[in-house]
Amino acid sequence: MTRIVIIGGVAGGASAAARARRMDEHAEIIMLERGEFVSFANCGLPYHIGGEIELRNALLLQTPDSFKQRFNVDVRVFSEVTAIDRQNKSVAVQPQHGGEAYQLSYDKLLLSPGASPIKPPISGIDHSHVFSLRNIPDMDAILAALATYKPRHATVVGGGFIGLEMAEALKHRGLNVALVELSPQVMAPVDIEMANMLHQKLISQGVDLRLKTGLEAIAPIELHPAEAEAMDQYDVAKKPHHELQLTLSNGQLQTDIVIMAIGVRPETLLASYAGLALGERGGIKVNSAMQTSDPDIYAVGDAVETPDFVAGAPSLVPLAGPANRQGRIAADNMLGGDKHYQATQGTAICKLFDMAIASTGLNEKTLKRLGMDYEKVYVHAASHASYYPGAHPVTLKLLFTPDTGKILGAQAAGLDGIDKRIDVLAVAQRAGLTVRDLQDLELTYAPPFGSARDVINQAGMVATNMLDGIDPVCQVDDVLHMTDEQILLDVRNPPELTKIGAFPNALNIPLDQLRQRLDELPKDKEILVTCMVGLRGHVASRMLQQHGFKTKNLTGGYKTYHMATIEY
Amino acid sequence: MTRIVIIGGVAGGASAAARARRMDEHAEIIMLERGEFVSFANCGLPYHIGGEIELRNALLLQTPDSFKQRFNVDVRVFSEVTAIDRQNKSVAVQPQHGGEAYQLSYDKLLLSPGASPIKPPISGIDHSHVFSLRNIPDMDAILAALATYKPRHATVVGGGFIGLEMAEALKHRGLNVALVELSPQVMAPVDIEMANMLHQKLISQGVDLRLKTGLEAIAPIELHPAEAEAMDQYDVAKKPHHELQLTLSNGQLQTDIVIMAIGVRPETLLASYAGLALGERGGIKVNSAMQTSDPDIYAVGDAVETPDFVAGAPSLVPLAGPANRQGRIAADNMLGGDKHYQATQGTAICKLFDMAIASTGLNEKTLKRLGMDYEKVYVHAASHASYYPGAHPVTLKLLFTPDTGKILGAQAAGLDGIDKRIDVLAVAQRAGLTVRDLQDLELTYAPPFGSARDVINQAGMVATNMLDGIDPVCQVDDVLHMTDEQILLDVRNPPELTKIGAFPNALNIPLDQLRQRLDELPKDKEILVTCMVGLRGHVASRMLQQHGFKTKNLTGGYKTYHMATIEY
Repeated sequence: MTRIVIIGGVAGGASAAARARRMDEHAEIIMLERGEFVSFANCGLPYHIGGEIELRNALLLQTPDSFKQRFNVDVRVFSEVTAIDRQNKSVAVQPQHGGEAYQLSYDKLLLSPGASPIKPPISGIDHSHVFSLRNIPDMDAILAALATYKPRHATVVGGGFIGLEMAEALKHRGLNVALVELSPQVMAPVDIEMANMLHQKLISQGVDLRLKTGLEAIAPIELHPAEAEAMDQYDVAKKPHHELQLTLSNGQLQTDIVIMAIGVRPETLLASYAGLALGERGGIKVNSAMQTSDPDIYAVGDAVETPDFVAGAPSLVPLAGPANRQGRIAADNMLGGDKHYQATQGTAICKLFDMAIASTGLNEKTLKRLGMDYEKVYVHAASHASYYPGAHPVTLKLLFTPDTGKILGAQAAGLDGIDKRIDVLAVAQRAGLTVRDLQDLELTYAPPFGSARDVINQAGMVATNMLDGIDPVCQVDDVLHMTDEQILLDVRNPPELTKIGAFPNALNIPLDQLRQRLDELPKDKEILVTCMVGLRGHVASRMLQQHGFKTKNLTGGYKTYHMATIEY
Repeated sequence: MTRIVIIGGVAGGASAAARARRMDEHAEIIMLERGEFVSFANCGLPYHIGGEIELRNALLLQTPDSFKQRFNVDVRVFSEVTAIDRQNKSVAVQPQHGGEAYQLSYDKLLLSPGASPIKPPISGIDHSHVFSLRNIPDMDAILAALATYKPRHATVVGGGFIGLEMAEALKHRGLNVALVELSPQVMAPVDIEMANMLHQKLISQGVDLRLKTGLEAIAPIELHPAEAEAMDQYDVAKKPHHELQLTLSNGQLQTDIVIMAIGVRPETLLASYAGLALGERGGIKVNSAMQTSDPDIYAVGDAVETPDFVAGAPSLVPLAGPANRQGRIAADNMLGGDKHYQATQGTAICKLFDMAIASTGLNEKTLKRLGMDYEKVYVHAASHASYYPGAHPVTLKLLFTPDTGKILGAQAAGLDGIDKRIDVLAVAQRAGLTVRDLQDLELTYAPPFGSARDVINQAGMVATNMLDGIDPVCQVDDVLHMTDEQILLDVRNPPELTKIGAFPNALNIPLDQLRQRLDELPKDKEILVTCMVGLRGHVASRMLQQHGFKTKNLTGGYKTYHMATIEY
């Protein structure tokens, strides 16, 4: 009888335990979890804090008992593994709350330890009003603090998934919220012009957004004796206005609680002590079978490195979907199977108030860093037929190879239909489709759901026109760095310029007058054509080319220009 | 200078005109439209009748003037083409409202005549209270009838897209509505067990649904002189309760207005008079370049036959998406391009009150008719994380080849996330992915949008387990036709049976007791295992197999059984 020992009882570990049991009714399966809870909905934690998910119990998907009953898995909570003895194939288990330590032998061992919040070594980081959010006890502690301290102001440090979700949750709770982020943008998986849509949303929702700002120290705000005296009430110490004084890289901020959400680090201590190989990004190294450098030890989830789908570079992807799939694959393989993990696109989505932002594949920052050639187009189109109520713009950025049009990555943001568009592109990318193929995708269409020519089809058409030289495009950078040999032509109607915004240096001829006013344009210069979103610019650009002008169409038009040049 | 003449100014024709102009600024482009309107939103018509789309103008996407201004297209409305002279490459145009007929020569001709509502030759079909809905004047006529006749009861004949949308629109308007459908189901693109979800919705919304019912005659209800006398008011004729008496194949029905929506027929008269080849389904025959049997004449849209993506069989697909793409391709090719249409999956969606139903590829009925081998699985899973508010079940049917797992077709229904799932499957099918690949798709996941293991992933896992023999499945038909060598085991908890419904002949052992009660099961019989949706059945089936039992898991569980056996 095979004995499988699993370290860690959440996403990857729990998936592996259930799959292992279904594959082998007779294996002995022991799951060791350091904490109190197994298989809880960690992605739901911010939403329970915010109040959207009312019942705490809704987050507890399985209990040790339910695991035992249904899957005959021996779940041992409060059981920390302190060492792996690879020679003797056993682990040292230290039960918490006073139990005796013991050795537990294994035939196959699965590591699913997850990742832990990064805790920067700054003064005050251990103050009782400073929290992170990774598990149920973390959530309980934050909820208890909200109930007992009744904070009026919270500071979220870090603008990733958890940071954004917590900023929203605390606003829902009625707190004033500051969001402090070291880099120039929140939501690292997308590029800055896309993130600017989030910045705008945060500000419009009243979040005090502080980009390019580091947290340097946290200090309690003490009641000065002089104040106490001035109050003339010696027996009641008056509470100061706020609890904590934050020293930021560019100033001071008073707040009541701090949520640290600057990222997570793979939990690799146990693995590295055991001499298992780590990868170059600091995660546990595994092959596509999810096997570590010890063939009897597998690892999955936030703790491991997997190759990214596009470039094959090792990547850390702390997401629930990959962890689940990896757990399933590891279970099969521990029981003699031959399953392989298919790299990670990093498909992700984040809700922020009424909007969503999502991405798959590589972003432009990463493509630049890796020195990969790419082209990009932007499309802004309605989430469904614009004449049917409830349509909202989908802003889509599509990155692809300049030669074959292979999809490198995609990002989308808006109020409606964002998940769908990135799902479609994630499938297209995984299947190896090119931007040309996107033109022909046959997607569901009825006015409440889509358009006869969906955003995705449009992006494919724009990219294909570009690849085929039918409509050469230019980018915001080109408009910002125009030469004397170029002019900028804005073909919008004048009210759009006054109402929405104008380029500082553009000639304005509305598209529908252009054919009659060609003589106002120079034949010896390159004309950068633009409109609101790029569609009229395309019509104008094609027209001008055939009248002997040299043109490039600004992809995404003024809307993309605005997104890319606004500073927050 | 090339002269392109386009017959028909809606979806396909309008797309072609705009693309042709972008591709060739100097071509002469003349668009002839029999009616008053070009490029209108025909998919929006029922929603304006229902009131969701408030402004009639929202449906008029372009006008002849706007086409002229922007695209320099000579749009001639009220201009019917009465003949094509292929020898001399010209068409005979008959302007309506008294203009002189004239000949118009062409270099390339594009036919985009659309399809017209089928009008069965039954008595009373021309009554003033009988309508169909294909264009703006049809819509105006229905709205005028609603305003002037103030009908209290409407009868919609035909349960396709238009029929369903009109039934809903008229309910929104406060009418009593009967829906009469000749076949046993509405929405022919899906199979009957899926359509049963629509039947249930129609009935729950108060629509008088009459399946397997033909309309045989329509007659006005006359005021009998005897009634007039009895009323004792000789100068005012009392209005009868309803306007029309319908003779149905199984009874009588009184109603005030009738909407005929039993389908459309391609408009091929002009093409066939001109000797152009028609296809076996009665549409205009075209090659993948959208070229008819005359190389200078192209045809697109509802009037043409295109090969279906799966079987390659000629099909008629009166949908807006394909028409748009075909128009674009034809435009390129008329101007010397070499673009090819990539067959039609027939991806479609229909909103019905708060639910949606969608499909892509071939359905089971068609696979049977074509004699193609297939397997099928059903999955019922939450549209997003079930612990986050607003999750609703997605019911998904997946059809695939028994050997390679190639996707043949998919259908989905539910309140949320239906468009997204069918879009994902449509892309997967077009890209040639198999059900195995669906397991590994990396889709957007955050609790408001999806699940770490999405419906699509789950369907892929179920289908793969089936193909690999890990979890052999059975279907509702097997349960309905059990032999003496089989028993049915329901592993749900007893309250589910009493609250939701039970199989008439099943042994009930809850999953969590099964391991302890194995001795109650026969080893010499095949055990058909079932639960609510198939997930617990899978766990039970795997367990039993490894204890030496022969099992099959009912795919989709009781929920699919109920959908498939209920009669409307």
